[in-house]
Amino acid sequence: MVKPKQPFPVSDVRRYLEPGPIVLVSSRWQDKSNIMTMGWHTVLEFTPSLVGCMITSGNHSFNMIRKSGQCVINLPTTALTDTVVGIGNCSGAEVDKFAEFGLTAEEASAVDAPLIRECHASFECRLHDDALVERYNFFIFEVVHAHVAASPKHPETLHYLGDGQFMTAGPIISRKSKFLPDRL
Amino acid sequence: MVKPKQPFPVSDVRRYLEPGPIVLVSSRWQDKSNIMTMGWHTVLEFTPSLVGCMITSGNHSFNMIRKSGQCVINLPTTALTDTVVGIGNCSGAEVDKFAEFGLTAEEASAVDAPLIRECHASFECRLHDDALVERYNFFIFEVVHAHVAASPKHPETLHYLGDGQFMTAGPIISRKSKFLPDRL
Repeated sequence: MVKPKQPFPVSDVRRYLEPGPIVLVSSRWQDKSNIMTMGWHTVLEFTPSLVGCMITSGNHSFNMIRKSGQCVINLPTTALTDTVVGIGNCSGAEVDKFAEFGLTAEEASAVDAPLIRECHASFECRLHDDALVERYNFFIFEVVHAHVAASPKHPETLHYLGDGQFMTAGPIISRKSKFLPDRL
Repeated sequence: MVKPKQPFPVSDVRRYLEPGPIVLVSSRWQDKSNIMTMGWHTVLEFTPSLVGCMITSGNHSFNMIRKSGQCVINLPTTALTDTVVGIGNCSGAEVDKFAEFGLTAEEASAVDAPLIRECHASFECRLHDDALVERYNFFIFEVVHAHVAASPKHPETLHYLGDGQFMTAGPIISRKSKFLPDRL
């Protein structure tokens, strides 16, 4: 279904994360894996490649990621809409989400957390700064390795609006000719 | 062009910010106003209504917002695409952006920074926590007042991909029936 992924420059992950998609965060702790949905995240820096993520402490994944200091941010497309909704509406305390949703765990290159094969892209992350975890459940991760499917060039991502609704990715427009070279 | 805005619950601003749009951040300091584009932001909490924003220190707006501790996050649509690109490719040190781009500054209700009338929504923000400003230029704001146009219900927002390209908002889909009530 999803084409094989290729290595992708970690300094360019904004290409996939800045538009604000819902992502699937996979983690592993003491031989158990889990997946959660996440909509509250932002790019913070190109190099090192930093991403800030709000992970509610009520999530089963919270302690797994807090303890392992690692995770993978995976980018699903509309082909996985019902899977995304399903993952967000059950708990890893009760369900093996890879098995339940028929997803394929693949070994990461640099972190001890599984990639999700069916996603368009996977970004391997290591905890970079936990200064705001206590106060805001806000983790700052460094993307240490990135994998992206070669096609399609513009994956049809999901963008959560709340209330069970998603905006899906629409047409791409370019204004490159109107940008200063250092503002792209 | 843009319909009059109405008050909107600050705890619901995720409806507009979680999908990850490019926003226009307006500020005022010592009687001068400015506008910057911003793509690196995330919702952090419903109540208080918190939003985290990465504002590069090289921006003219950085010091204005650092000193005033206030700003307005405005939501443009594709009707303003060229305005958004123009604003992101000049500096408030040299240009009065409201005048240059024919935008209308309106007084905010609760902060000393201008709203942009031509945008679909405007969120008045006060600095809530500057713990990560030194290290990451990351500001945590509280949205203290929100204004949203009554229509359209689904504004055609811009989502920056880098390299001068934008993804525009596409079709809306609902899976509300598949959500648990406390997961919406």
